[in-house]
Amino acid sequence: LPCRPCNEVRVFVINTGGTIGMVIHDDVLAPKANALVQSLRKLPILHDKLYAQNTCLYDYYGRNNTLVLPLSKANNRIVYTILEYKPLLDSSNMTPDDWVRIGKDIKDNYESYNGFVILHGTDTMAYTASALSFMCEHLGKPVILTGSQVPIYELRNDGRDNLLGALLIAGQFVIPEVCLYFYNKLYRGNRVTKVDAASFNAFSSPNLAPLATTELDITINWDTVWKPKTTARFQVSTELNQNVGLLRLFPGITADTVKAFLQPPMEGVVLETYGSGNAPDNRPDLLAELRKATDSGIIMINCTQCLRGTVSASYATGKVLMDAGLIPGGDMTPEAALSKLSYVLGKKDFDLNSKKTMISENLRGEMSAELDGAKLCLSDS
Amino acid sequence: LPCRPCNEVRVFVINTGGTIGMVIHDDVLAPKANALVQSLRKLPILHDKLYAQNTCLYDYYGRNNTLVLPLSKANNRIVYTILEYKPLLDSSNMTPDDWVRIGKDIKDNYESYNGFVILHGTDTMAYTASALSFMCEHLGKPVILTGSQVPIYELRNDGRDNLLGALLIAGQFVIPEVCLYFYNKLYRGNRVTKVDAASFNAFSSPNLAPLATTELDITINWDTVWKPKTTARFQVSTELNQNVGLLRLFPGITADTVKAFLQPPMEGVVLETYGSGNAPDNRPDLLAELRKATDSGIIMINCTQCLRGTVSASYATGKVLMDAGLIPGGDMTPEAALSKLSYVLGKKDFDLNSKKTMISENLRGEMSAELDGAKLCLSDS
Amino acid sequence: LPCRPCNEVRVFVINTGGTIGMVIHDDVLAPKANALVQSLRKLPILHDKLYAQNTCLYDYYGRNNTLVLPLSKANNRIVYTILEYKPLLDSSNMTPDDWVRIGKDIKDNYESYNGFVILHGTDTMAYTASALSFMCEHLGKPVILTGSQVPIYELRNDGRDNLLGALLIAGQFVIPEVCLYFYNKLYRGNRVTKVDAASFNAFSSPNLAPLATTELDITINWDTVWKPKTTARFQVSTELNQNVGLLRLFPGITADTVKAFLQPPMEGVVLETYGSGNAPDNRPDLLAELRKATDSGIIMINCTQCLRGTVSASYATGKVLMDAGLIPGGDMTPEAALSKLSYVLGKKDFDLNSKKTMISENLRGEMSAELDGAKLCLSDS
Amino acid sequence: LPCRPCNEVRVFVINTGGTIGMVIHDDVLAPKANALVQSLRKLPILHDKLYAQNTCLYDYYGRNNTLVLPLSKANNRIVYTILEYKPLLDSSNMTPDDWVRIGKDIKDNYESYNGFVILHGTDTMAYTASALSFMCEHLGKPVILTGSQVPIYELRNDGRDNLLGALLIAGQFVIPEVCLYFYNKLYRGNRVTKVDAASFNAFSSPNLAPLATTELDITINWDTVWKPKTTARFQVSTELNQNVGLLRLFPGITADTVKAFLQPPMEGVVLETYGSGNAPDNRPDLLAELRKATDSGIIMINCTQCLRGTVSASYATGKVLMDAGLIPGGDMTPEAALSKLSYVLGKKDFDLNSKKTMISENLRGEMSAELDGAKLCLSDS
Repeated sequence: LPCRPCNEVRVFVINTGGTIGMVIHDDVLAPKANALVQSLRKLPILHDKLYAQNTCLYDYYGRNNTLVLPLSKANNRIVYTILEYKPLLDSSNMTPDDWVRIGKDIKDNYESYNGFVILHGTDTMAYTASALSFMCEHLGKPVILTGSQVPIYELRNDGRDNLLGALLIAGQFVIPEVCLYFYNKLYRGNRVTKVDAASFNAFSSPNLAPLATTELDITINWDTVWKPKTTARFQVSTELNQNVGLLRLFPGITADTVKAFLQPPMEGVVLETYGSGNAPDNRPDLLAELRKATDSGIIMINCTQCLRGTVSASYATGKVLMDAGLIPGGDMTPEAALSKLSYVLGKKDFDLNSKKTMISENLRGEMSAELDGAKLCLSDS
Repeated sequence: LPCRPCNEVRVFVINTGGTIGMVIHDDVLAPKANALVQSLRKLPILHDKLYAQNTCLYDYYGRNNTLVLPLSKANNRIVYTILEYKPLLDSSNMTPDDWVRIGKDIKDNYESYNGFVILHGTDTMAYTASALSFMCEHLGKPVILTGSQVPIYELRNDGRDNLLGALLIAGQFVIPEVCLYFYNKLYRGNRVTKVDAASFNAFSSPNLAPLATTELDITINWDTVWKPKTTARFQVSTELNQNVGLLRLFPGITADTVKAFLQPPMEGVVLETYGSGNAPDNRPDLLAELRKATDSGIIMINCTQCLRGTVSASYATGKVLMDAGLIPGGDMTPEAALSKLSYVLGKKDFDLNSKKTMISENLRGEMSAELDGAKLCLSDS
Repeated sequence: LPCRPCNEVRVFVINTGGTIGMVIHDDVLAPKANALVQSLRKLPILHDKLYAQNTCLYDYYGRNNTLVLPLSKANNRIVYTILEYKPLLDSSNMTPDDWVRIGKDIKDNYESYNGFVILHGTDTMAYTASALSFMCEHLGKPVILTGSQVPIYELRNDGRDNLLGALLIAGQFVIPEVCLYFYNKLYRGNRVTKVDAASFNAFSSPNLAPLATTELDITINWDTVWKPKTTARFQVSTELNQNVGLLRLFPGITADTVKAFLQPPMEGVVLETYGSGNAPDNRPDLLAELRKATDSGIIMINCTQCLRGTVSASYATGKVLMDAGLIPGGDMTPEAALSKLSYVLGKKDFDLNSKKTMISENLRGEMSAELDGAKLCLSDS
Repeated sequence: LPCRPCNEVRVFVINTGGTIGMVIHDDVLAPKANALVQSLRKLPILHDKLYAQNTCLYDYYGRNNTLVLPLSKANNRIVYTILEYKPLLDSSNMTPDDWVRIGKDIKDNYESYNGFVILHGTDTMAYTASALSFMCEHLGKPVILTGSQVPIYELRNDGRDNLLGALLIAGQFVIPEVCLYFYNKLYRGNRVTKVDAASFNAFSSPNLAPLATTELDITINWDTVWKPKTTARFQVSTELNQNVGLLRLFPGITADTVKAFLQPPMEGVVLETYGSGNAPDNRPDLLAELRKATDSGIIMINCTQCLRGTVSASYATGKVLMDAGLIPGGDMTPEAALSKLSYVLGKKDFDLNSKKTMISENLRGEMSAELDGAKLCLSDS
């Protein structure tokens, strides 16, 4: 076979399911198998039929799941190959096993593609993006999750633009991160949370500015993009510990509730606290349960319930929780903290202290560097 | 004693504690007893010493905890009396017992004052505001919670303006609601959530516009203000059920975790679900635990994890949870849903079905009326 | 010929030009004649080829400029006919003569269509929308201007969604206004201004909330939509006076500059003043020129330079300008005020006083009703 | 006299007038002479009476216009001396002569103070800030303009916090720029524009992020703060050319209007164009007038009417205006462009070409560096 045109770049797309590929049956949205590729072939925005025929695209790739975008402004051709999961998954049904599968599929195709796009339901997309960000070690290529609030089969929808934008970035920019792309913004994957159930602008990255915006131009904020610190070989960590959980404080929470939640086999817990990481300091029963848990080897992270904000080791307000053995979670989202626990607790060769150290360190840009020293110099009044 | 000037209105202030009245000791912020009134007396913005002397204010009220604002634009004099709790409470330490105490103090002083201001820490202010909104039955006067991110004793702080604005509204406008006032906005109390741990603009009311803004003028959005439906006498419901909790779904949550959380004496649970109220429908083990719980009489409300959005009875996506006996929570915040459970479960004379009906109804403006009928007519594409 | 299917609604589209239909020639964007319809035919989102063939759409309408959208959610078929102007116009080149032409084309096709969409460049779209809002008297159907920041021929663009949304609203909702639709929001046409030269979210309606939002659903804010006050027959006023201008105050502006600007044949001027309508009151030379102008019959409107805000007749600050004969412009945009002048000054049968009265009245929702009375009651402090 | 305590820093305050110091007379706000210092003395937030007495502050400074803030967080004492202009000026009445006076007063006191605060009305504050930014050459200390929307004598006002924040920054941070401080944000002075006539949040810096925010802490964005490029001695350029003006394009503008506006003695004009700097290219009469003007030595700058956006030399769309001799104004505000013209045209020793070069260069951070080269590499699609 002849060579492919030299301006072609390749993107690997994994369609896990989600609203983007759903159709309405009996008034209920449900995923439809084997339909997305057929549908995309008919959208000139997302597939250039003529080019595919003229360049024998199908012959070359020998499969019927490869499409090609029209020529980009930079004269690139993004050829993308779609792997569809069977069955397609509503993202509410996603589990850590599915994260592992996605990770393995990225690994298996890592060398052959310039970038990766993961189609995914919006409901748990922030969780999957966070988990993949930790699982993907020494990542050197873009992995971009996207999806939509309205199915791509509907007349008016956000799926076309979200898929198109994700493909263009994944194929043309070396952003070595797990990202999430939605409504013309590219976010770091472990920084986002779904904030709106009914708007196209569904995600927010409350403590970190977007990595890129796609308006008249695609503008990358290179200062924010993660800089790899090693040249180690890409690998995917697939051992995830599922004995983890999220526990949210509320006034009047009983020690019984806390105790029940922390009982075996629980091994890691994100405690969603108040404000800058606060908890009642007049509740010895509650604090004793927390202390007992951390003494028994459960790793607990102190994260705030607030959308924006930081739990710092240098604030005194969270002192009782540090005394109870909790690790300050900085400005991590609960989604990032939970999947970080899954990832770190899965490291079987590490002892407890090493794991705690990993939890408190910034592994993938999921938390901001401690700025308190600097702040003290500048702040006043 | 002579009559007071006829342009005087009276506001009752309860100082429960919180950052607004804290001072730094050994690098830690802590509340300082008996200090606030002394401090306010020295601030001409918040106390008109000359007027107090000229009108024998102290003689008349016979106590040293009464202050008076300078003349307002509308030529009113707001005379306010401060009741300080001993000990002052960090809001992290607030419990339902404290809510009851506040409620009783409002009740005891209800007839003698035009309005009420509750000084409170920001960390759990949204919980307290929600709880009081339910406990206060047939409320006909404003009850406004406020506080600050920076103590009023510091040079630059938001406490002065927050207290002043709350007093001006409580004294001059008949807004028969439990409200929260912060950074020049007045919100319905059971609609807010703390979204920022480090900004003056700390609260958000994601699903309802503010009741008022205080910029150049105080502008009340009367269309949004709650209209009382009865002329029944004001009372405070003080029976709160504390066997309630918040459980947040996450991918991979185990049935064991759910089971542990739902074990007795749990009686009411807010399940924080995905998006528009979604949960895994391929997890019979999980759904069985939920079903078992609701069968046993636990009342469960389906609320979304998203900051903005609605869990509707007419969406099919949350169908498995309705089948499992959960009640759709509409656009209630988790804080409102949790305290609504406490309030409704405290109604000992009501049977389970009546309680479930109350939960699904809009009691205090905490949820938006079901708009789905209307929406279906208008929506399209 | 047989009848058309009864779920068909018809929209008339006028393509005046603008970025939406431009292509790059020699590094410069320029409009391309006779290309838009051909291009839309190839986009399945914007044309359902199969339906057109099956229902003999082309035979029926006997022309090659009619297209049909895929079935909408409400089971409507929007059939739209495109009239393309020759030559296509960059919106920088639009003049009042072009507004007249658009008005006449709406009039000529008024009875045969359910709604109207005007494709237009973004640069002067707010001016055209304002002008048409006044010219269209007793309008009973939607007239929606839209366009895009990136040409519809480019890979990633906002033209497809803007056109699609405008068609869906124009065909399905009886909003009897001249509107502007952009980036999922429908605005009243005489309330918008272009605020961003480089973002998809290019327009703002600073003093009035959008008429509709198109996210997961199309949600119309019916409370804001204009309610026609007469059942008079629709007509288009085509006499526009072009002797009008915008003059912006700045510190140090000389009386000479003002005098030069106001010399004949000037007949109407929007003076862009400071803040709430302020001008220097210590500049007798300047004020004398303004007085001279209004004495000579020039109508002058006082509008603010600020994006948001109101010039009120009841504020004392603008008193010197009222004394100089200027009419307070309320919260009108400069675009609306200027085209209102063109429209009112074109009414040859009206005397000067009638014209001044029209200028000070709210004709098409372009200014908010005077709220000062109400405000005085509510405001304080 | 003894030395002053070593933690004292000195700020020079110029009270030019404006709303912050106004009182209501006969329903009209007007400035009140000699009142501000008296009023501030009574506000414990803004004056520490006890400290002043204990340290013989008045004796030392020998005047009655010096005050001192309470101790700051950083243990500094900000001693500030107020120079009040007679008469106090409504900012609508400000002229370039007043800018010169302010500049001279800064110059005269430059060596004795750590920083400068200018109290000023909001209406033309953006113009004055822009003008001072150019006039102050080789500035090495902060000059911060502030004011308020509500007088400091009123109960609820924004003047106290604005003045306090400006003093704290001016006294404690070496930000060598003319800045504007309002509602907890510090902006570069030549980047702001007044966008709201009736909100505390009155200013916007549409094309540059704030230099600092003052929430729980004062956080300086040092990356954005201007870095002086020379160590030349501070001086104030007081020759301002007043034969300048702003002319806003609108559809149908006549060549007569343009010609009238450009007649002598006009020497510099900011043309407010459409979008990214566009003007009609089918209007030879109009373009001829512009050409004639630039040929005759008038310097014209092309600025956009849009709040956000850039007029770039590399966009073809503004080509006709470059051909007509206009200089692309980048992302300068109209206020900055106008005062830059005044400043540059006042340089009598410079020839026309040198002046044009200065206009096109970034002198004080008033425009963003040309990013088009960089953008071309990154952008696509």
